[in-house]
Amino acid sequence: MGLNAPRRGADVWLHCRAMRKLASYIRGSWFPGTGNARPLHNPATEEVIAETSTEGVDFAGAVAYARSHGGPALRELTFAQRGELLGTMAKAIHGAREELIALAIENGGNTRGDAKFDIDGASATLSAYSELGRELGDRKVMADGDGVQVGRTSRYQGRHILVPRHGVAVHINAFNFPAWGLCEKAATALLAGMPVISKPATATALLSHRMVELFVANDGLPSGALSFLAGGAGDLLSHLRGQDVLAFTGSSDTARLLRAGENMIAHSVHINIEADSLNAAILGPGVDDGSETEELFLRDVTRDIVQKTGQKCTAIRRIFVPEDRLDRVADMLRDRLSGTVVGNPADKQVGMGPLSTAAQLRDVREGLARLAAGGTTDLVGGSGEVSPVGVPEGKGYFIAPVVRLARDPRAARVVHEHEVFGPVATLMPYSGAAAEAAELVALGDGGLVASAYADDRAYLRDIALALAPYNGRIYLGSSKMAAQSMGPGTVLPQLLHGGPGRAGGGEELGGRIGMALYQQRVALQGDTAVLKTIAE
Amino acid sequence: MGLNAPRRGADVWLHCRAMRKLASYIRGSWFPGTGNARPLHNPATEEVIAETSTEGVDFAGAVAYARSHGGPALRELTFAQRGELLGTMAKAIHGAREELIALAIENGGNTRGDAKFDIDGASATLSAYSELGRELGDRKVMADGDGVQVGRTSRYQGRHILVPRHGVAVHINAFNFPAWGLCEKAATALLAGMPVISKPATATALLSHRMVELFVANDGLPSGALSFLAGGAGDLLSHLRGQDVLAFTGSSDTARLLRAGENMIAHSVHINIEADSLNAAILGPGVDDGSETEELFLRDVTRDIVQKTGQKCTAIRRIFVPEDRLDRVADMLRDRLSGTVVGNPADKQVGMGPLSTAAQLRDVREGLARLAAGGTTDLVGGSGEVSPVGVPEGKGYFIAPVVRLARDPRAARVVHEHEVFGPVATLMPYSGAAAEAAELVALGDGGLVASAYADDRAYLRDIALALAPYNGRIYLGSSKMAAQSMGPGTVLPQLLHGGPGRAGGGEELGGRIGMALYQQRVALQGDTAVLKTIAE
Repeated sequence: MGLNAPRRGADVWLHCRAMRKLASYIRGSWFPGTGNARPLHNPATEEVIAETSTEGVDFAGAVAYARSHGGPALRELTFAQRGELLGTMAKAIHGAREELIALAIENGGNTRGDAKFDIDGASATLSAYSELGRELGDRKVMADGDGVQVGRTSRYQGRHILVPRHGVAVHINAFNFPAWGLCEKAATALLAGMPVISKPATATALLSHRMVELFVANDGLPSGALSFLAGGAGDLLSHLRGQDVLAFTGSSDTARLLRAGENMIAHSVHINIEADSLNAAILGPGVDDGSETEELFLRDVTRDIVQKTGQKCTAIRRIFVPEDRLDRVADMLRDRLSGTVVGNPADKQVGMGPLSTAAQLRDVREGLARLAAGGTTDLVGGSGEVSPVGVPEGKGYFIAPVVRLARDPRAARVVHEHEVFGPVATLMPYSGAAAEAAELVALGDGGLVASAYADDRAYLRDIALALAPYNGRIYLGSSKMAAQSMGPGTVLPQLLHGGPGRAGGGEELGGRIGMALYQQRVALQGDTAVLKTIAE
Repeated sequence: MGLNAPRRGADVWLHCRAMRKLASYIRGSWFPGTGNARPLHNPATEEVIAETSTEGVDFAGAVAYARSHGGPALRELTFAQRGELLGTMAKAIHGAREELIALAIENGGNTRGDAKFDIDGASATLSAYSELGRELGDRKVMADGDGVQVGRTSRYQGRHILVPRHGVAVHINAFNFPAWGLCEKAATALLAGMPVISKPATATALLSHRMVELFVANDGLPSGALSFLAGGAGDLLSHLRGQDVLAFTGSSDTARLLRAGENMIAHSVHINIEADSLNAAILGPGVDDGSETEELFLRDVTRDIVQKTGQKCTAIRRIFVPEDRLDRVADMLRDRLSGTVVGNPADKQVGMGPLSTAAQLRDVREGLARLAAGGTTDLVGGSGEVSPVGVPEGKGYFIAPVVRLARDPRAARVVHEHEVFGPVATLMPYSGAAAEAAELVALGDGGLVASAYADDRAYLRDIALALAPYNGRIYLGSSKMAAQSMGPGTVLPQLLHGGPGRAGGGEELGGRIGMALYQQRVALQGDTAVLKTIAE
C-alpha cells in the first residue's frame, strides 16, 4: 500500500483528532468561529489537541435570542418541569462519564480521580437542583415568607415573591472546573427560570464543549435556554442590561475589570463574583495525637494540596496549628506528601498531574518565589522542581507539592495576601486560642471557606462565630462526622459558595440562596385574597 | 435706646439663628468643621438659616472608631437589646416632633403635612425595627433556614446563619427625606449589629442634625454606634474595606461614580443603591366612573404630584389609563390640581411648598423643557410658572404642579428615560390590556414601585406578574383596601424598598430582607449538635 493510499479507520480517527475544532452554540445552532483559532493543549505533553475561535460570533444576536426564546420558554415551565430538565442533563453526563473523564485527563491534566471529582460534582449538583425543583413543585412563582398585615385590618396585606429576571445569565467560568463550574451555575439559573450563555475558560474548554453537545442532543432543553461560547467573550458584556446577570469565577484582577465595566455600572447589571481566597484550616487545641480528628485534619490538608494539583478555589492555602503541634504536623505533612507521584495523569500510578496551563505554571513559580522572599521557609518540595513520569523530556506544566513554613504568621504578610493557585500551602503556628486563630484568618481579607478541627464543642462554637464574618462557609471537623466528610474543599449544592472581601462577596449555590441572583424579589401590597392568588 | 445698645432676648435669638452652625458627630463627640462653611437655605425665602463644613474632620479616624468601638459594642447586644435602642430613638423623635416639624418647614420647604410624613415615617420605621428586634429576641445570631443533612447520616449537617459584618455602614442620604432617610437606613443597620456613619445631603441637613443631637443625648446608644457628617464626605469612602457597607440614595449619576470607585471594587465593599425611578400608576379596564377604586387612583396620583412637591423617589411619574378613559382622567386631574395653593409652607393655607434647592428648581425646569420637546403636550400647569403666596417678590424655588400628556407613549421616549424630580407626571393612554401596560412600564428600565388599580382579580394577578421583574414593589389598588391605603408612594418598613435597573438594583427595608446587607451569610457544616449550639 503506497503512502498516498488512504487507510480508513485509524487514520480518519487521527485526522479527526488533529482537526478537533470546537464550535459555539448560539441562537439554537452550532457555529464554528472564523479567523485565527486558539490552540488547546494537553498540559502533560504540551501537544495541541484542539482549537477554537469565537471570531464571527454574533454576540448581540446570542443575547437577544436567549432573551426572546430561551427566557419565555423557561418561564412557561414550572419549577418541577425545570427540575426535570436538570435531571435529564445529569443523566446525559452520567451516561457519557468515561468519555468525559478521558477528555478531562487529556485537556485538564486531571488524574482519573480529579476528573471524577469535577464530572461527578457536576452531575450531583444538577441532580440536587433537579430535586429542589421537584420540591418547589408545580408553580412558577416562589413565595418569600408569609403575608404581613400593612393596614388596619387583615384584608390589606403585603408579601414578597421571587420571579425570574427577564434577561440572560452570562456565566464566565474558570479553567479548573470545566464540568462542575458550568453545571453549578447553569443548574441554579435554569431552575430559577433564566436562560444561560456559558463561557468556559478557553484553555480547558474541551470537556465543557462535549457536555454542551450532550445537553443539546437531548430534546428537552428549550431553544435558547443554554448557549455556549467556545472561546473569547468578544463584546458580549456590552450588550447586558438591567434584567441580565453576570456570574464570574476567576481571578480578582479580572473580576475588578468586569465590575468596573461602564455598561455593568450604568445598567445595574447584577453581578456575582467568586474570586481569590486564602482558605484556612485550623487545628484546635487538645486534639490527641493519632486521633480520628487529627487524621481528618491531615487528610483534608493533604487532599487539598494534591487534588486537582491544588487548583481549587476552595483549597486550603493556610494551615494553622497550635505552637506545640507544629513539629509533629510538619513531619506528618512531609511524610504524606513526599511520596506523591507527579506526572502524566494518563499513567495510572500518577497521583498528581500537571497544572492546567503554561500561564498557571508561570504564576505558581512566581508565587513560590514571592513566598520564599516574604518570610517563609521550605518545609516540603522546595521550589517545586520535579521529574514527572510518563511525559516527553522537558514537557508539561509540572510542579511538585510544596509546603512552606511561616514561623511568624503576622510578619509573613504575603501568605495572607497572595494566593498561589497550585499544590502549595503554608504551615503556621498560633497560640491555640480561637480568637487568635480567627484574627490570623482575617488577615486574608475574606475567604470562601475556613475549617477548624476539634472535639471540644465550646471551642468549635467560639471559632465558628469568630470566623463567620470573614468566610462564606465554615467546616467544623470532628470525630463525629469524620467518617462522612469529603473535606472543606468540596462545594456542596445545599450550602452557600462564596465569601466576602477578597473572595468577591458573591453567593452561589446553597439551594434557593443561589437562585436569588437570577430572581427579582418583589413586594406585593393589596387585598389579601388577590395576593394569595399570585403568591400561592 | 441707641442703635448700639444690645437688647437681650429677641436679638440674641436672631443672633443665634444667624450663627446656627452644624457640627459633625464623630469618635463620640461633636466636631465643628473648619474653613469655609456651606450655607443652608430656607427654600421659600432663600434666606441663609445655617451653615456647615466637614473640613478638618478625621474621616479615617471616624471609620476606625466606629469599627473598633461601635461595632463590638453593638455585637455584644442581643437583637432585643438593639431593638430597645431603636425604640428609644423613636421616642426621642416623637418627643421633639413639633420642633422637628418646624425645622423641616424651614429648611426643607415642607408643608406641615410633608414634614409629618417625613418625621412620622422616621419614627414609625424605628418602631417597626424595634418590634422586629423584640421578635428576634435574646440572641445575637440569626438562623437562616433549617439544617440539612449533608452526609450519610443525620449527624452530619449543614445550615446557614447570618452574622453582623465587622465593619462600618456608611449611609449617604438624599435631600428629600432628611428624617426618614436617616432612620430607615440606621434602623436596619443597627438592628443587624453594624455601626453607622450617616451623611445627609448638606442642603437639608438641619433636620437630620437635630435628630442626631436628640439620639446622642440619650444615654443608651453605645459610643461609635452612630456617627454623623454634617456636610461633604471628604475621603471617607477611600477608607472602606471588605467588611464595610455603603448604602446610597440619590441620583443614578452619583451612584455610578460611587460604584466605580476603585476602592469599592478592589475590596468588594457591599453597596446598596436606591436611584432614579420612573414609577408608574395604571388604571385597569372596567373601573367604574365614580367608583371607590377610581377615586383611590385619582387620590394616589394627585397626592404623589403634590406631596413633598413631588420630591419622592417613589412618586408616580407615569400615569397609564385605558384609551377611553383618557379625557375623563385628564379632566379630573385638571380639576383637582388647579386649586393647589403654592407658596411659603410657613403659611397654613399653602398646599405645596417650594422645591428644596435652587439646583432642583433648575433641574426640574430643564426636565420640563425636555418633556415638552420630547412628544408631550401641556395638560396642567404649563411650564410650571407660579406666583407663590407668602414669600418676598421673586424669591424661592417654586414650581406649579404639572401634568403632561403623551398620546403616543412609545414615541415619547423621554417620558420613560428622564425622571423629573418635582411635582410633574405624564398621562398616557394604553389599550387596557395588562401585557401592554407592563410593556410600557418596562420602558422605564426598572423602578421602585408600580401601582395598578382594578377590582378584577384576574387582571390584578396578570398585571402583577407582568410588572414583577421590573419593579421592587407592586401596589394593587382596589375597593377592598382603598380605605386603609396610604398609596404607593409610602415606603413601608415591612416591605422591600428598591428596584432593578435604573432604580439601582438595591434592597432596603422589608423587615429582615434589608438587614442582609449588613450581615454575612455563612454556611456551617459539621456535627449536628455543634451546629445547634451555634445557630439556636
